[in-house]
Amino acid sequence: MIIDDGGDLTHWVYKKYPNGFKKIRGIVEESVTGVHRLYQLSKAGKLCVPAMNVNDSVTKQKFDNLYCCRESILDGLKRTTDVMFGGKQVVVCGYGEVGKGCTAALKAMGSIVYVTEIDPICSLQACMDGFRVVKLNEVIRQVDIIITCTGNKNVVTRDQLDRMKNGSIVCNMGHSNTEIDVASLRTPELTWERVRSQVDHVIWPDGKRVILLAEGRLLNLSCSTVPTFVLSITATTQALALIELYNAPEGRYKQDVYLLPKKMGNTDK
Amino acid sequence: MIIDDGGDLTHWVYKKYPNGFKKIRGIVEESVTGVHRLYQLSKAGKLCVPAMNVNDSVTKQKFDNLYCCRESILDGLKRTTDVMFGGKQVVVCGYGEVGKGCTAALKAMGSIVYVTEIDPICSLQACMDGFRVVKLNEVIRQVDIIITCTGNKNVVTRDQLDRMKNGSIVCNMGHSNTEIDVASLRTPELTWERVRSQVDHVIWPDGKRVILLAEGRLLNLSCSTVPTFVLSITATTQALALIELYNAPEGRYKQDVYLLPKKMGNTDK
Amino acid sequence: MIIDDGGDLTHWVYKKYPNGFKKIRGIVEESVTGVHRLYQLSKAGKLCVPAMNVNDSVTKQKFDNLYCCRESILDGLKRTTDVMFGGKQVVVCGYGEVGKGCTAALKAMGSIVYVTEIDPICSLQACMDGFRVVKLNEVIRQVDIIITCTGNKNVVTRDQLDRMKNGSIVCNMGHSNTEIDVASLRTPELTWERVRSQVDHVIWPDGKRVILLAEGRLLNLSCSTVPTFVLSITATTQALALIELYNAPEGRYKQDVYLLPKKMGNTDK
Amino acid sequence: MIIDDGGDLTHWVYKKYPNGFKKIRGIVEESVTGVHRLYQLSKAGKLCVPAMNVNDSVTKQKFDNLYCCRESILDGLKRTTDVMFGGKQVVVCGYGEVGKGCTAALKAMGSIVYVTEIDPICSLQACMDGFRVVKLNEVIRQVDIIITCTGNKNVVTRDQLDRMKNGSIVCNMGHSNTEIDVASLRTPELTWERVRSQVDHVIWPDGKRVILLAEGRLLNLSCSTVPTFVLSITATTQALALIELYNAPEGRYKQDVYLLPKKMGNTDK
Repeated sequence: MIIDDGGDLTHWVYKKYPNGFKKIRGIVEESVTGVHRLYQLSKAGKLCVPAMNVNDSVTKQKFDNLYCCRESILDGLKRTTDVMFGGKQVVVCGYGEVGKGCTAALKAMGSIVYVTEIDPICSLQACMDGFRVVKLNEVIRQVDIIITCTGNKNVVTRDQLDRMKNGSIVCNMGHSNTEIDVASLRTPELTWERVRSQVDHVIWPDGKRVILLAEGRLLNLSCSTVPTFVLSITATTQALALIELYNAPEGRYKQDVYLLPKKMGNTDK
Repeated sequence: MIIDDGGDLTHWVYKKYPNGFKKIRGIVEESVTGVHRLYQLSKAGKLCVPAMNVNDSVTKQKFDNLYCCRESILDGLKRTTDVMFGGKQVVVCGYGEVGKGCTAALKAMGSIVYVTEIDPICSLQACMDGFRVVKLNEVIRQVDIIITCTGNKNVVTRDQLDRMKNGSIVCNMGHSNTEIDVASLRTPELTWERVRSQVDHVIWPDGKRVILLAEGRLLNLSCSTVPTFVLSITATTQALALIELYNAPEGRYKQDVYLLPKKMGNTDK
Repeated sequence: MIIDDGGDLTHWVYKKYPNGFKKIRGIVEESVTGVHRLYQLSKAGKLCVPAMNVNDSVTKQKFDNLYCCRESILDGLKRTTDVMFGGKQVVVCGYGEVGKGCTAALKAMGSIVYVTEIDPICSLQACMDGFRVVKLNEVIRQVDIIITCTGNKNVVTRDQLDRMKNGSIVCNMGHSNTEIDVASLRTPELTWERVRSQVDHVIWPDGKRVILLAEGRLLNLSCSTVPTFVLSITATTQALALIELYNAPEGRYKQDVYLLPKKMGNTDK
Repeated sequence: MIIDDGGDLTHWVYKKYPNGFKKIRGIVEESVTGVHRLYQLSKAGKLCVPAMNVNDSVTKQKFDNLYCCRESILDGLKRTTDVMFGGKQVVVCGYGEVGKGCTAALKAMGSIVYVTEIDPICSLQACMDGFRVVKLNEVIRQVDIIITCTGNKNVVTRDQLDRMKNGSIVCNMGHSNTEIDVASLRTPELTWERVRSQVDHVIWPDGKRVILLAEGRLLNLSCSTVPTFVLSITATTQALALIELYNAPEGRYKQDVYLLPKKMGNTDK
């Protein structure tokens, strides 16, 4: 059997020991990328053993996103900036699972939290959870902290960074490294000052400083830690998937990619 | 001994049976008004037995204000208007104990809550608890509900009522009946329509309706109930005060007004 | 076109004017029952126009369950019993959307909340949201309030009702009327005393009273009101579905039951 | 004028330049210790200028205790142990301002929180805020984290440490360094293992490990940082006190220790 994270082992076996699959009963994969590669193989008709998609199980998704981010947003901001959350005005861009975690945590710490969201259902949820849904431009001049978690590109533009307050913080909790248009800040008229690991002051000609964390990369990966509890819950899910594949009677799983059975963590509740 | 609520019994004994005080070991009083009358007697040198101020004990103050109002604001609004709290914009005028209770409850129900407050310390507390502190005029056009709990007069003026949205609700949780300038609404150009007990629609010439609860009197007294638990906790405090006065060794209490000893409920934590 | 709630109109047209369907472009249905009947028709190959399932749209599900119950659990309990929530011990049976709403509301009001849940994923969510997940028997003797929202039968048995505290409250927020085994309470040794509308005291031979609300029927329907906002949001969703069906180009919808397109409220976020 | 933190400068001037007080208009002091020394001087009749007690102003007390600890408990635990808060069982010993901050933060992060408290009023507050008030012995075997904030000695005894779970964490947020009986852990049968700065594993003969933070000293001082915002608010309060003393008309302040006037931060709300 193969237990994989990223699909590299699977790829390597395909390349080096293609005959090995005759003796392999299945693949268990936990990452977005690896799962994506498995679905491609399956679509191309090249998947020769059953595979289990652990990445999309509830235990992985909820922990990686909602529960982890609820804690790591606070942790990441504290370790890098020592900012006090109480009374701060914060805008969170995106109200998916990550955004829900970030807003809940900051609200509980006494921050005044705004949400930007283009999806109407997520907007409605933000609203019913007590957050003002705004356009970024409406609050850009008054917020102390901007957090992106949309999965989109250039959510915070140079034009918006130009209008931020002196001393405000901007960071990214989303999926890509391009949510904040960091490239636009690498221009001659702006000075960058590295004040400590993962923390840059970007300084405007008039002396205004914006605090950029992790150069726009993921705050939760760069500036906080992943609790061992979360690692162990993901590993446990993989182990369960492994056991399921190994013990499954002939014919239950074909040469396809499967989600875990519901009792093992696959439900959308 | 005298156990009193409002000071009327005390007053009656003073008037009718002044000699009775020779046999009376003390007075226990639970209301603001009654306590006020006792302090006046004491100041005038006319208090002839020890008196216990139960009104200012923590068990009474916290329950009457913070804990009760946290529940009765929701109850009072629901019973009168069936309003859904989630997503509503609410401004709470005053951030004392009553305001703290109201804001906490509405925030938890998913309302977007603003606070007005003139005391700098209370403002700071509101801010650190995650509420935007505003001037009423800043938000008057956008809020769905106005709640007053300041203890002051004319906190909501006619001019402000003129600018409220159609369908918005205005009510009073404070100490007096004059926080909302209801008198100013009794003018010929406005029509009043009683839609049910304690609920009036005040209708502007252009058709705009503002929902006024309890004609500006206290919502928590007029439109919700007091849980028996709260009545019993106040009665218990009075009973404890009674026992303390009765059992106190000669000389512990003089002809003055006393707060309960700390172990019996008097602390400012 | 047909706009229906419960499927009765659809049924009536089928029976009386089957030819009418030649001129009908579609059906829009908002209830669980009506949707169930539509799927049966579809399965039997008898559905002769496209139908839109509004019941399972997010705007309906989230509002009917999570957002409404978060408010109606408090409202229903207050109107019937005037109970103070602060400091009360409450057990909520079931941690689906209804359970999530009930627990969030009561936690915010200062209740100490326990959850029972058999689904492992929902249990994990309850745990990560800060609730102790217990078996009902572990807490039955200490809780002040039991709330059922599981959708199952006999979640609270006679044996458990026998062990409840004097003065405790039991009510049902779930889907059926049989979550509490009320039938088992209709025995000669127990006395029922109707104290007010929707409120019965069931009295044990030793004098213990348990307060049963709405005779075990749904508290949110029997003892609280549905905000007009929720009615209007469901009606709006139906109207949108109607417009979609009416305007859809030939061939987009066949003789089947459809969920709303995502932009109109169908997503599982 | 003298601006002091701890009373050392004041002491030094008393000793070296006692005549200097002829030219000094007042002392401003911000620490508990320094204020204590001033009150002693005053009582002994040796205070020769007015002094302002900044320590007991609301802006200092609320920030040092409630607001700071609400954040630093999370920060201190994360930086030292990377523990995930969601779903953890935590007992907080003491429900003063520090305990209120710690419990609020952990509850918001999804921990199941118990409180121990001997003061009846604070117990009642904990209860009304939704925490189960217990004796430490009732929960010692099940909790994952113990946090002390009582100001008392030996709140957690060796006997209790013996009964803690493997992997549980114990730390101190209170006033003294003796809340946890750390001395009792320095015995031959227990092994100490320093796993990183401020973190010791104390290992029992059966292999059980208890994670002791900062050797029982204050977690918020040892393992987290004080936001500059808090330092600046205290400094601002001192500056205001300084200005008040300097500008006060002759006779407003005598040779005594004063609290700040209410408008400058002294109120007990």
